[in-house]
Amino acid sequence: LQSKFPDLGLTIFSRMSALAAETGAINLSQGFPDFACDAALLNGVNAALQAGHNQYAPMPGLPLLRQAIAHKFEASAGLLVDPEREITITAGATQALYTAIGTVLRAGDEAIILEPAYDSYAPAIVAQGAVPVRVSLAPPHFAVDWQAVAAAVTPRTRLIIVNNPNNPATSIFSRADLDALAGIAEQHDLLVLSDEVYEHLVFDGQQHSSVLSHPQLRPRSFAVYSFGKTFHATGWKVGYCVAAPALMAEFRKLHQYLVFSVSTPMQHALAAHLQLAASWQGLAVFYQQKRDHLAAGLQAAGFTLLPSAATYFQLVDYSAIRPDLGELAFAEWLTREHGVASIPVSAFYADGRDHHIVRFCFAKQQQTLDAAISRLAGLR
Amino acid sequence: LQSKFPDLGLTIFSRMSALAAETGAINLSQGFPDFACDAALLNGVNAALQAGHNQYAPMPGLPLLRQAIAHKFEASAGLLVDPEREITITAGATQALYTAIGTVLRAGDEAIILEPAYDSYAPAIVAQGAVPVRVSLAPPHFAVDWQAVAAAVTPRTRLIIVNNPNNPATSIFSRADLDALAGIAEQHDLLVLSDEVYEHLVFDGQQHSSVLSHPQLRPRSFAVYSFGKTFHATGWKVGYCVAAPALMAEFRKLHQYLVFSVSTPMQHALAAHLQLAASWQGLAVFYQQKRDHLAAGLQAAGFTLLPSAATYFQLVDYSAIRPDLGELAFAEWLTREHGVASIPVSAFYADGRDHHIVRFCFAKQQQTLDAAISRLAGLR
Ligand SMILES: CSCCC(=O)C(=O)O
Ligand SMILES: CSCCC(=O)C(=O)O
Repeated sequence: LQSKFPDLGLTIFSRMSALAAETGAINLSQGFPDFACDAALLNGVNAALQAGHNQYAPMPGLPLLRQAIAHKFEASAGLLVDPEREITITAGATQALYTAIGTVLRAGDEAIILEPAYDSYAPAIVAQGAVPVRVSLAPPHFAVDWQAVAAAVTPRTRLIIVNNPNNPATSIFSRADLDALAGIAEQHDLLVLSDEVYEHLVFDGQQHSSVLSHPQLRPRSFAVYSFGKTFHATGWKVGYCVAAPALMAEFRKLHQYLVFSVSTPMQHALAAHLQLAASWQGLAVFYQQKRDHLAAGLQAAGFTLLPSAATYFQLVDYSAIRPDLGELAFAEWLTREHGVASIPVSAFYADGRDHHIVRFCFAKQQQTLDAAISRLAGLR
Repeated sequence: LQSKFPDLGLTIFSRMSALAAETGAINLSQGFPDFACDAALLNGVNAALQAGHNQYAPMPGLPLLRQAIAHKFEASAGLLVDPEREITITAGATQALYTAIGTVLRAGDEAIILEPAYDSYAPAIVAQGAVPVRVSLAPPHFAVDWQAVAAAVTPRTRLIIVNNPNNPATSIFSRADLDALAGIAEQHDLLVLSDEVYEHLVFDGQQHSSVLSHPQLRPRSFAVYSFGKTFHATGWKVGYCVAAPALMAEFRKLHQYLVFSVSTPMQHALAAHLQLAASWQGLAVFYQQKRDHLAAGLQAAGFTLLPSAATYFQLVDYSAIRPDLGELAFAEWLTREHGVASIPVSAFYADGRDHHIVRFCFAKQQQTLDAAISRLAGLR
């Protein structure tokens, strides 16, 4: 078997989580909460199991769940989405991303990604025989140079992938960003894939602007969401994709042969839970407190904070602590010697470029954050 | 967007299930049980949810579950499988099939499939830009002509996909079949993908022989299994793939970016359940009774039975009832006029060839089978 990915190893998330487990470190690397899901949501799954909802869901997802998603779009952002033709439930956001990429790209095509980039985009492009074309963003603000994006377009370009809010940059798009993206997409007739899994984790009173809210982007975009991120259940692997009917029809053709359908009992429980506005409102406030708490501890420990506008991650520059170490070496040293695991941001750049920045996840209960802060206090 | 699948519609399973729902017919089309899962298994999921097993599972699957699978292979078939390097848990068998196909095939490659073929194989091949090459099997026995398979091999062939036990043919491979397959695979250095989701549903005292049990096939095969089929929970979408370490390493590279991981609470519950031999022993007896019951009813209604050696399907020839109708027309007529939904076997042939055969699913509780039989009694 000739490898399609000769240079690919385990993801940085698997590696750092394994190192954390092996060394007993507090795991602030891979992005997942360490606190309980809402009890009503868990009970909802059990009720669905007991009620016998254990056989195949309809291929595009449970109608009730798709309707609840459409209602939420309307209630949260005034967006109109057709549950029948524009929403498909997926086995997590990763499968939605892979399926959208597979729907659009053929061998020899190009897709533009912005770096730092979530680690699944490039391999999913390569898996189609297509080519990722990278445009780099720089700390601390990771602002997008849209002229550089426009310059990266070639006759082979089919797709631009964006991540808004951005993990790991923790930045969000302004309306001007969406306008610039729309201009390029229209001019070159490109499709857009927008990974919006952190849609609700936007801080300091700012607002998330989805591609779905942009009239020019709406007909040419796939937008991807995650119940795992929103409901603290990353292990359930339920997400969804939204796109205009013509795009979604093609997405579903691949989806139905890639995974066919998604966990029926989880879909029942999520449909009920989503109807409670309280299940997603208040998330920003909840996580902003955690961000502020961890940020204060990191700063006290000698790290230089980067802005964290969104997501559940905080980036820090560690130059004042160990300027001699590269990011991966620093993250490993911090895990082994000080018992706190993080993610080197170099892992999100194809060339592994080093800014002396690591990423900490603050989706943790207070006592976990406190324990990490107290371990890091020993750094100085 | 230029469609990758211009000719593809909804799967026949989605279409017939929708028609059954719309017309109030008894749904013996799509293959899924209508009876409850084992209560202990359901309680196991609830226990896992309540215990907080709601975050990402390790990418290849929960170690406990992979160990339980390895034990089962040893206990049920004397097979040695390394849980660490040879098993990966997937979002159902469909995702395992898609991932194995994506791991092996590139644009321009060819893969041989045997028709009638489960409907996901060809689109998964086409999605890689590769070409399905079909070898047809004929009713009533659907025996494989291995010389025809050998003749279908070209320099572009990379993979042979088999389905053993075969849905919809309901046939199983003999040892001679495996030897012939091994001979062809070795001679042309091909890989094999064996869909074995009905491994335990083999009747009349016959035995299922996995590719994993064949010394020549073992190092060059992917074998795919389904907890949905084995534990009556098709809606949970948990399955697994087994392959030699070198193959599995490549499979995981794609898997980790296609879906990353699989439902953590379900994996916990399945690990516990699998350790009970009673959870999978006795399945053949259980289903054989259902087969015999439905078969008797179908015969009494005027259908000609085909042999059903395995799976939870019974094929019948309806020529004595409505020789004038093609298979799809017959299945629709039977659904609308007599309230029982089935699957036309022509849907499993690319050219839609018609043998006047439809498939009934007997994974149903006694009262469902009785109701279907009594509706069909009106046919004569
Ligand atoms: C799928 S593991 C990675 C989880 C995550 O979103 C992150 O840590 O960035
Ligand atoms: C994924 S829906 C099809 C279920 C099935 O295996 C069948 O009916 O053959």
